[in-house]
Amino acid sequence: MKPTNLSRRHAMLRAGGALSLASIGTLTPISKALAASESKDAPSLPDYASWKNPDALIIHSANTMETKRGAFGDGLITPLDRLFVRNNLNPPSEEITEDPDSWEIRIEGVKNPTTFTVGELKRMGLESVPMILQCSGNGRGYFPSEPSGTQWTVGAAGCVIFTGIPVKKLIEATGGIADGMKYMTSTGGEEIPEGIDPDTVKVERSVPAEISDRALLAWEINGVPLPLAHGGPLRLVVPGFTGVNSIKYVKQVAFTEDQSSANIQQNSYRMAPLGEKGSPEYDSVWEMPVKSWVTQPSEPDQTLKSGLVQIKGLAMGGNSDVTGVEVSVDGGDTWHEAKFVGPDLGPYAWRQFVYPVELEPGKYEVTSRATNADGQTQPKERMENNRGYLNNSWHDHMLSITVA
Amino acid sequence: MKPTNLSRRHAMLRAGGALSLASIGTLTPISKALAASESKDAPSLPDYASWKNPDALIIHSANTMETKRGAFGDGLITPLDRLFVRNNLNPPSEEITEDPDSWEIRIEGVKNPTTFTVGELKRMGLESVPMILQCSGNGRGYFPSEPSGTQWTVGAAGCVIFTGIPVKKLIEATGGIADGMKYMTSTGGEEIPEGIDPDTVKVERSVPAEISDRALLAWEINGVPLPLAHGGPLRLVVPGFTGVNSIKYVKQVAFTEDQSSANIQQNSYRMAPLGEKGSPEYDSVWEMPVKSWVTQPSEPDQTLKSGLVQIKGLAMGGNSDVTGVEVSVDGGDTWHEAKFVGPDLGPYAWRQFVYPVELEPGKYEVTSRATNADGQTQPKERMENNRGYLNNSWHDHMLSITVA
Repeated sequence: MKPTNLSRRHAMLRAGGALSLASIGTLTPISKALAASESKDAPSLPDYASWKNPDALIIHSANTMETKRGAFGDGLITPLDRLFVRNNLNPPSEEITEDPDSWEIRIEGVKNPTTFTVGELKRMGLESVPMILQCSGNGRGYFPSEPSGTQWTVGAAGCVIFTGIPVKKLIEATGGIADGMKYMTSTGGEEIPEGIDPDTVKVERSVPAEISDRALLAWEINGVPLPLAHGGPLRLVVPGFTGVNSIKYVKQVAFTEDQSSANIQQNSYRMAPLGEKGSPEYDSVWEMPVKSWVTQPSEPDQTLKSGLVQIKGLAMGGNSDVTGVEVSVDGGDTWHEAKFVGPDLGPYAWRQFVYPVELEPGKYEVTSRATNADGQTQPKERMENNRGYLNNSWHDHMLSITVA
Repeated sequence: MKPTNLSRRHAMLRAGGALSLASIGTLTPISKALAASESKDAPSLPDYASWKNPDALIIHSANTMETKRGAFGDGLITPLDRLFVRNNLNPPSEEITEDPDSWEIRIEGVKNPTTFTVGELKRMGLESVPMILQCSGNGRGYFPSEPSGTQWTVGAAGCVIFTGIPVKKLIEATGGIADGMKYMTSTGGEEIPEGIDPDTVKVERSVPAEISDRALLAWEINGVPLPLAHGGPLRLVVPGFTGVNSIKYVKQVAFTEDQSSANIQQNSYRMAPLGEKGSPEYDSVWEMPVKSWVTQPSEPDQTLKSGLVQIKGLAMGGNSDVTGVEVSVDGGDTWHEAKFVGPDLGPYAWRQFVYPVELEPGKYEVTSRATNADGQTQPKERMENNRGYLNNSWHDHMLSITVA
């Protein structure tokens, strides 16, 4: 039940993370500007994300920011200024969001390949989907193998509502998927530096073609035009799949016989065993597994006041409804059914849960485990892999706290 | 089918309202500050709501701002910086939201009257409820009788997610409602000017005691601490009831034998006939009726491009699920079933709808009518009343547009 060798990294994560945590609970929009000017020690927000709330985020770098565990809010939908950011390349110029309706998207690998503007898409259909965006490497910071990459804890995830047009509407409008095409391969609009083989850097991902049934080309997030930081003016979003598969500033959706030749598809985001390099022989990181974590308590080594405590958190089924969550306060020895809070927003959204419990003074190991409609329960152990993907271990996400 | 005598008021509303409407579609959080500095002609936002998006709002006064018809967004939940504001008195000092956990709420008219702090409430329970906030006078601007009060069109309404503790939990914790109490009477924390009979100005509203079953004492809205502009640090929210019944900065919830003696309960917010003064003999404005309106097109006299158009809008059941919406483009002569977009967030939330239609060049009269689970359908005519409350007439909410 002891923390393993993670305390060094935890301390590091806390240093960047917990700085102004006490102020989160009282943070109103009005005090945001003030709070920002007070965060002197943390790395600062990049220009394209300057409108984010720095007190709610752990800023790892200019292209990687995660939501603090205590800053998701209890409103089911993650406030946009607290939502994590993770870019594989630097984003394009802000200019591309100034006239979103003129952005062009090419549909290929269909009977009648066509280029549409976003303005045209908006006249063709409308759908809204609540869904979790979660980085493939969320929870990497808990791997004892210390995989390279951003040391995310729980916050490279958020639940948002995307609005756009179903990809299947565009398939219909372009005559259907061409014969023999097995993948939907989408390409981001990032600028590729000159003199580099595009395959080494370009953001292009393939998912099974049938997944297009649930995908959306989205121009809105949480009711506002999609900002550049989250892939505006247009993003391909794939509910139930990890974030890398939801292509930002998407400029092409192609139905293809084979998976993309890009390195990000062939070798990165592969479930390679410890010590092995990623390659096409290993599973691609696509679907998200069942997962949950507590958000209150929200910090390792936190001290809570004794008495009645609301242990709360977030739970996701991955690719089917989350049907139950249990909470343990004794490191997984005993489990107690938690209660869902608020409405069910569908299989791709998360649910809030709460477990009210009377806690005497003492030490507690607090964690949660979710079960989904497919009967899968969040496991104690992570799936070991070389790059630290898909961590859903309830043990890794546990917090040791003191009740005084 | 012609606009009646409303054109003068429509023109006035448009002058204040549509100023920068073209920019709404492309407005990102980043361009907000810029947009604000460009809105030279509109009245400016008051300090307590300075974080609002002025381009999304019609600013009637320092205490009344409504969301423009084209600015609700398509994400089901109204973005907070676009949500309407309506205060009966000036709000208290911003200071009351600085340490929200210390705010005190008195529970009276129960077996064991008790004062709780918000910090204590947070340890006692947790619930999240998606619900419509709508001013009783939303749609007043369409009454030909020109009732006094803010000339709201459609935008004194929003759908948000409130988080707090169910009032019934507090009733349980205080021994149950005292015998003979028929109303839940809640009091706002506004400062009452000296030398005035408090009953003439205080914001204190009574609703039937059994409605406490669905009420919440809320400290969060859309996942962030409740700002002063929306009643923070603590608001009593009554799902299904008009906004005036959801008491801001609530300092007392009392179960009472009689309705409040305050003027706002006795005489205001009463369904008095045209020409009569409000008084207790008329129904209090409590429950919201079934209602819908189109949001695209979003302006009277708008010109749309011919071809396929997505007519879209928002529909609410009032106090039961909205089960269907029809759209008419010929002034109500023929109706077409619209399709719901996105998930059902429960009986107190609204749903988005869309009706895709091919429109030839010409003139159209576009409107919608909703039906709820109780079998009630939105009527053609408003319920006439002296102060312009509860307007749900589909005819009043119709837009005359041109397709070119």
